[in-house]
This record gives sequence, structure tokens and C-alpha cells, in this order.
Amino acid sequence: MIPNWLLQRSTLTPDRIALLFQDEQWTFKEANEKALVLAKKLTASGVRQHTRIAIYASSNPQIIWMMYACMHLQCEMVLLNLRLTGKELAYQIDDAAVDFILVEDLLMEKLPITKVSILSFSEINASPEQAIIVATEWAENQTMTIMYTSGTTGFPKGVRQTVGNHVSSATSSVYNMGLVDTDCWLCTMPLFHISGFSMLAKSLLHGVKINLYPKFDVVKIVDELVAGTVTRMSVVAVTLERILTELEVRNAKASPKFLTMLTGGGPVPVDYLKRAAKLDLNVAQTYGMTETSSQTATLSGADALRKIGSVGKALFFNQIRIDEAKKPFEQGEILIRGPHVTPGYIGRFTDKPSQENGWLHSGDIGYLDDEGYLYVVDRRSDLIISGGENIYPAEIENILTSHEAVREVGVCGVEDKKWGQVPNAFVVLSEDVESNELLAFCRKHLAAYKVPHQIHIVGQLPRNGSNKLLRRKLCELLIKE
Amino acid sequence: MIPNWLLQRSTLTPDRIALLFQDEQWTFKEANEKALVLAKKLTASGVRQHTRIAIYASSNPQIIWMMYACMHLQCEMVLLNLRLTGKELAYQIDDAAVDFILVEDLLMEKLPITKVSILSFSEINASPEQAIIVATEWAENQTMTIMYTSGTTGFPKGVRQTVGNHVSSATSSVYNMGLVDTDCWLCTMPLFHISGFSMLAKSLLHGVKINLYPKFDVVKIVDELVAGTVTRMSVVAVTLERILTELEVRNAKASPKFLTMLTGGGPVPVDYLKRAAKLDLNVAQTYGMTETSSQTATLSGADALRKIGSVGKALFFNQIRIDEAKKPFEQGEILIRGPHVTPGYIGRFTDKPSQENGWLHSGDIGYLDDEGYLYVVDRRSDLIISGGENIYPAEIENILTSHEAVREVGVCGVEDKKWGQVPNAFVVLSEDVESNELLAFCRKHLAAYKVPHQIHIVGQLPRNGSNKLLRRKLCELLIKE
Repeated sequence: MIPNWLLQRSTLTPDRIALLFQDEQWTFKEANEKALVLAKKLTASGVRQHTRIAIYASSNPQIIWMMYACMHLQCEMVLLNLRLTGKELAYQIDDAAVDFILVEDLLMEKLPITKVSILSFSEINASPEQAIIVATEWAENQTMTIMYTSGTTGFPKGVRQTVGNHVSSATSSVYNMGLVDTDCWLCTMPLFHISGFSMLAKSLLHGVKINLYPKFDVVKIVDELVAGTVTRMSVVAVTLERILTELEVRNAKASPKFLTMLTGGGPVPVDYLKRAAKLDLNVAQTYGMTETSSQTATLSGADALRKIGSVGKALFFNQIRIDEAKKPFEQGEILIRGPHVTPGYIGRFTDKPSQENGWLHSGDIGYLDDEGYLYVVDRRSDLIISGGENIYPAEIENILTSHEAVREVGVCGVEDKKWGQVPNAFVVLSEDVESNELLAFCRKHLAAYKVPHQIHIVGQLPRNGSNKLLRRKLCELLIKE
Repeated sequence: MIPNWLLQRSTLTPDRIALLFQDEQWTFKEANEKALVLAKKLTASGVRQHTRIAIYASSNPQIIWMMYACMHLQCEMVLLNLRLTGKELAYQIDDAAVDFILVEDLLMEKLPITKVSILSFSEINASPEQAIIVATEWAENQTMTIMYTSGTTGFPKGVRQTVGNHVSSATSSVYNMGLVDTDCWLCTMPLFHISGFSMLAKSLLHGVKINLYPKFDVVKIVDELVAGTVTRMSVVAVTLERILTELEVRNAKASPKFLTMLTGGGPVPVDYLKRAAKLDLNVAQTYGMTETSSQTATLSGADALRKIGSVGKALFFNQIRIDEAKKPFEQGEILIRGPHVTPGYIGRFTDKPSQENGWLHSGDIGYLDDEGYLYVVDRRSDLIISGGENIYPAEIENILTSHEAVREVGVCGVEDKKWGQVPNAFVVLSEDVESNELLAFCRKHLAAYKVPHQIHIVGQLPRNGSNKLLRRKLCELLIKE
């Protein structure tokens, strides 16, 4: 059993600052009081303990208090991605079979038509309060959050993340990069992603501040780095590059009080690492996924240039091995084991095993070098990572295939200076159609970041002997064009 | 499952310093290699995996490598206190039913006669090696150490401490006082005590250095504090006082690099806290016991003077409550819950429940104030704490009662400037005897620190209506003398 994070934290360090947002701040005691009041209002609105609810809101204190209220009620929180289309939202809401959707008022109109009860934040706030009994401890295997990741089949899978998963992730993180009194996480990551949510877990467990930004604002962020008002931050390659440029333009360095720039969501170009080193910026590359509740491996800043291209070693309580590899440098599927690994999926994938004897099959291909450093060679199932967002080709292919003029589709990632990768689609037509019309069709059905940057009309797709699409060969078509 | 600490730590940070001892130092890779070699030698000497063995050695690197070897073999290590008499050792060796005793050569002659196989360190070192298969992970409920505490009955009880107990203790500790790259524990605590052993656990889990001292040397220790070559240390009141005096005499302060002086094993006089504050020394008072694998509550240095007399609040994963207390300041037995609590005892106390619904009954009396700070009012069962060592009156009473000239005995703790408390005995005689003879008798059967500082011959002992000895009233006899 794990003590209720909010009760324990607000008991242990009531007067410490929990959250900074623009000009406001809240202590852990205040955060807990807000959460308790909202939990009572949610109860009066019909939300029951231990039920599954969806949350759809942008990064601001309101969503945090709402999540904390749901923690008190031990609800399973399905965190909806703000960038999804109505169709994508409808799929997740249906698949998760939630009892309620809690929605920020401004986002009400973006919700698809659904039979599920919807509670806007203002409705909840206006509700009376109903007495509740708050659990003082939580079971480790209690599901706290559910996050959807795109699946190889094109159907996103709802990943369960338990109390124990989040605790072990936050603990491994501290064992890896330490913890100091003055710690403050600058959060520009979406809170519906594990990258953002894991900061909330760290804040409550470690008793540290979060400085929350509603969106990425490079000027203000670099102000904070230079002033040393924050100590840790998570970025993806594209945002790291913007920070480096801003520092270079100002001819400034981050304060020595700033300790760690965690960089995840895909590979970081070597050039960025060299620029960061010149600026004495401690960039720690990480490897993780929704199924591992954040980091599973991290490369220390000290090794950043010596082990370029590596994502480091497993965190203390985790284990990583390469399937069937007999010696260093042999490539194979990356297998992950540890208390941070999801117990499984929900919805239509409930029965799909997420592990084999405790080992998660990541789907990614990699190797360990002779010192035990992990290198990721190829992302799982042709996964495209664009600005830190995961895009599965199959999802885009499914949409385009549904267009009447399209016979066959193949999607692959194409290198992009800004985003790392962007999706490109290759289609074989059954009847004449402009590629612009296909793009418009994609925009209607897919989150903006998933829409192919280009659609190439081709005569046939590269396939192997058993007629399986060879997505990696698609790029060669591009060169031939 | 928890990764094998030694394999994981030596894989993650092979080149970091694990141990400093006088002029030598060893990296984690070297420490692990030493442990593996010794594990193979122990195996060749007949020690099997998962068996129970006793270790009897003083604080030096040899005992650490031996313990690490036993960890690789997943042995249950019974850690024998160096201060015990032959009779006390014989009791523990018998009660624990160990398969082997591993003994430092210099201590061989202090061992009692026993049927158990004895392996001296030099024998082990001279042994050939036998191949072993080392487990890559350990079950959380695997017993790692067994430490004897004196019991209220006078029979010491063997407390099981599991892998999970030690991990959660080390984790709670980091959540409470942080972790920095430069961390180094100065260890003068005996390694057979949880205060010392917990540093080994922290070293392996957190990847930090230990600077091991064979004994308490105030001049060298203060040199380290002033130079900032160590960052954390554990002391008891009596050693804290010596450090304070040495700093005062030198008119010096500890380096700002020195972070935490953990003070446990009984109350700390207010005067010491005030002197520490003047020296900017961050003293963190703790409350813990063998049954909780070290700290269960800690008072932060920031609260040291505001909450004088308190041992602080529970660590994050722990819970503390006062039995039957309905509101703040109500006194009662201190109950403790959490993953750091022992699963139980061994030997003749195997069947004695250590918990009730997960709550450990500490036997200590205390209260929580209106801010949730714990105050210990009275130690369990008249426990005497002398220089950080626990002494149960019953154990001394049992010995004295066995003397033919003694009819009745009562033992209690008397305030002592240097040791905090020292035991005093009150005896009713059945025939004439000098108190010096009784003292000599005690010296023969009891560890030196348990021998009463004074034996008072009295006409009768204070008893209640049901004739139960009122140990707390014994002190009043002293005043009347």
C-alpha cells in the first residue's frame, strides 16, 4: 500500500510551494484543499469512487486540481490528447467506456457527440459538495491513469498506469538524477502525456515545485533558465533546439542552479548535443514510452558526448535486455522489465498481453554496447516520432484507405530538420483524385500532427514475397521521384 | 522483484567510488568483483545459496566484501554485535540456527564453543573458487539481514529485514533529505547495527560513497566535516556532543558541502540542538528501530528548534498513528505502518506477531501535536538507551536474579550527561553480598554497556497492587538515598 499522495504530501510539507502558474502560486496544503473540495463537488455531480472518467483540458491549474480530485476519488483517469480530432476522441471515449467526461469549458464544442455524461469545469465548480470518505492509502496495482498510444494496427491502445508504476518511475528518476531542496520542474509538456503527468507525480512524491507553462514560450523559458528559477525540464529535440538557439542568440548560459534537461521522444541530433555542451547545459537523453510510465533508460550528461546516439542505461529498478542477443552490439527487440511497466491495456486490447514473464516487448530494435549502454536503432513498427508525438503509419493508412479513390497506401517517416520526422504517404489510386483532396480528407479525420506533409501518387508499393508492405523501402521511392 | 543491487550498481556506475577506508578506495566495479570472488570461495567452503549464516567482524572493508558476497548468495545474514559476551553470542547463534559463522581472524577467540561450522576470513580467502550462478534479481520479501534486539522478556529477538524493507528505507530517506552527485556518508556506526548497515544499502542503491571509520575518531571526523569531504553522517547524542565540542574548541564550522547530521538512538538534549544551530550544523533528529530497518520519522533541520523534543514526521511511504488517540496531544502507543516494517521475528519468536493489520506496535508511548509532529514520551517497556545502544532492564534483571545471594531485582535507566542514560540496579538480598561482587558477576555475563553503573541494595522494590514491579518508581529510591 502507498499512502494517498495528496494527504501525505500536504501533511509532511504543507507550506512548501506545489505549483507556480504565471503570477500565482499554491502550497501543497492549498492544492490538497482544492482537490478535496472538487472531489466533494464531483461526488455531488454523480462521480463515484473507483470509476473511470475522461479528462479533456489544456495545461492550467484547473486540470491539475481536477486530476488531484480524481486521485482522491481513486478514479481511473483517461487523459485525452488535445490534438485529437472529434473522430479520434470518439474512438477513445467509446473504447475506454468512461462514466463521465470532465471538460474545460472552452473545449466543450470540440467534444464529439456522445452518450457519455459530460461535466464542464464550471458546472463542477458550481456544484454543491457531498461528503466523501477519502482513502488514506492506495493499492499499488490501482490504475491511476490511462493514456492512449497509437497501435501498430492503427487502433490506439489504452495503457493502464498504476499507482505503483508512477511511484517506481518517480523513485527511479530520483535515484538517477538526485533531488535537492530547491528543485523546480519547468513544465511545458502536455499533462495528458506521460512526460507532463510524470511531473505531477514527482511534485507530489518528491515534494517539489512545478512551474507550469500553458505553452512553450522560448523567451520566458530561457529567462527562467538563465535566472536559475527552475532546476529541471523535459524537452523533445525540436524544443531543445529552440532553447539552444535562444541561448546562443543572447550569448547566455543557463544558471548553474539549473541541473537537468531531460530529452526524450526520439533521437536528438548530434549537433544539438555539441551545442548544449558548449553552453554547459546538462542534457540527459532518455528512452521511455507510455507503457513504462516515462523514462526507462537515461544517458547522464557526463556521457552525452562520449556515447553519442545512446539513450544510456536502465534506471536502478529497471532492467533492459535485447531479445536473443548473445553478446554486445547484437541487435534485437528491446525488452524491458521493472515495476514501472504497465500491467496491460484496456478496452478492445484488454486481452492483449503487454508482457511475457514480466518482460515488455517494446517493439523497438536496439543493441547494448560493451559497456551496457543502450542504442535504439529502429523505432517499433515503423513508428514515426514527430516533435515528440508518436505517429503510427497504420493509423494514417487506415484513414487514406477509406477514401473511395485510393486502392493502396503506405506511410513512412521522412527526416525533417525541425520536427525530427514527418509522415509522408504513398498512394496507389483506383480512380483519379488530386493529392490536395486527399490531404483535406486526412485533415478532417486526423490530428494535425498526423496529417502527411506530402502525399505521393505512385504506381505500386514496395512489398516483400508474402506481399507485406515494406515501409522502409518507401523512402527509396522518394529519392527516385 | 528488485535487481541484484551489486550487479545493477556495478553495471550502472562501475567507476564511481563505493568505499573509502583510510588511504584506500574501491569503485563499485571493484566492490562487486571482490564480492563475486568471495561468493565463489564461500561456495567452495560449503556455504549454500539462501542459507542462514552469522557474521562476526569489526568495521573494515573485509566485512563489507563478505556481506556483499553473502548478498550474491542470497544468504540470510545474522549480524552479531561485537559487544556481546560469549554467553550472549551463544544464545543468538543457537536461536538463529545458522549454518555457518564467518569470523574475522582476530575475533576467533571471542566466539563461544559451538557446534556450528566456523569459517575465519583468512580461511575463506585461502579457499579455491567454485562456480556459482548469481541471481539477477531478488524477491522483495527475501530476508537479507537478521539483527537481534533485546526483548522485553530479556530474551533478544531476531528481527528479519527483507530486501524490500531496506529498499523502501533507502528510498524514503532520499525522498526526505535528497540526493546529490557528491554525496558521501561518513560511517562510524557499527555495520552490525541497522544504523551502519543502512549506509551500505544506501551506497549500493543510491550509488554513493561511504567513508568508513573503524571507530569514532572525533579529530579526524571534524577534519572531514570542516573540509567538506563528506556530506552526511549518523550520530547518537553522545557522539554529536563530542563533535560539537571539537568544533567549538577549534572555533570552526562544518563546510556548507556537509548536508545532514542524522541523530538517532534516543533523545537529543536541547542544549546540543542550540549549539548545533549556532554552528549552522543541520541536525535531523530521527526515530527508528531495528524493526523498521532504520528511520521511520525524521525532523528536518529547519524545524529543529521550532519543534524541540520532536522526532518529526513520518517519511513519505510510512505512516504513524497513536493507538486509540482521538485528537492531537493524546498519548498512546506509537503504531507504525509501511514497507519498511519487518515481516517478523525468527527463532523462538517466529510465531510472535510483529504487526496487527500491518501496524507495528512499537511499544513506545508518544503523541502527535496539532501539526502532525511526533513526540516520543516514553520508550517501550522501560527501555534504556545508553549511547545509542538499547538495553532492556529485564535482561540485566535476569542475570542478577540468577545470583544466589539475590532475591529480587529492578533495573532502570538513570540520566547521564555523557551516555544519555545508564542502567542502575536495585536489589533485595537473600544473603549478604558486596555490590562489587554482583558487578563482577554482571561483567561476566553481560556486554559491558549493559553492566549497571551502580547496584543499590534496598529493603524492598516498588510494586503495584498486583505486585508488578514499577520500574519508573525505582528512580525515586535513588533520590531518597
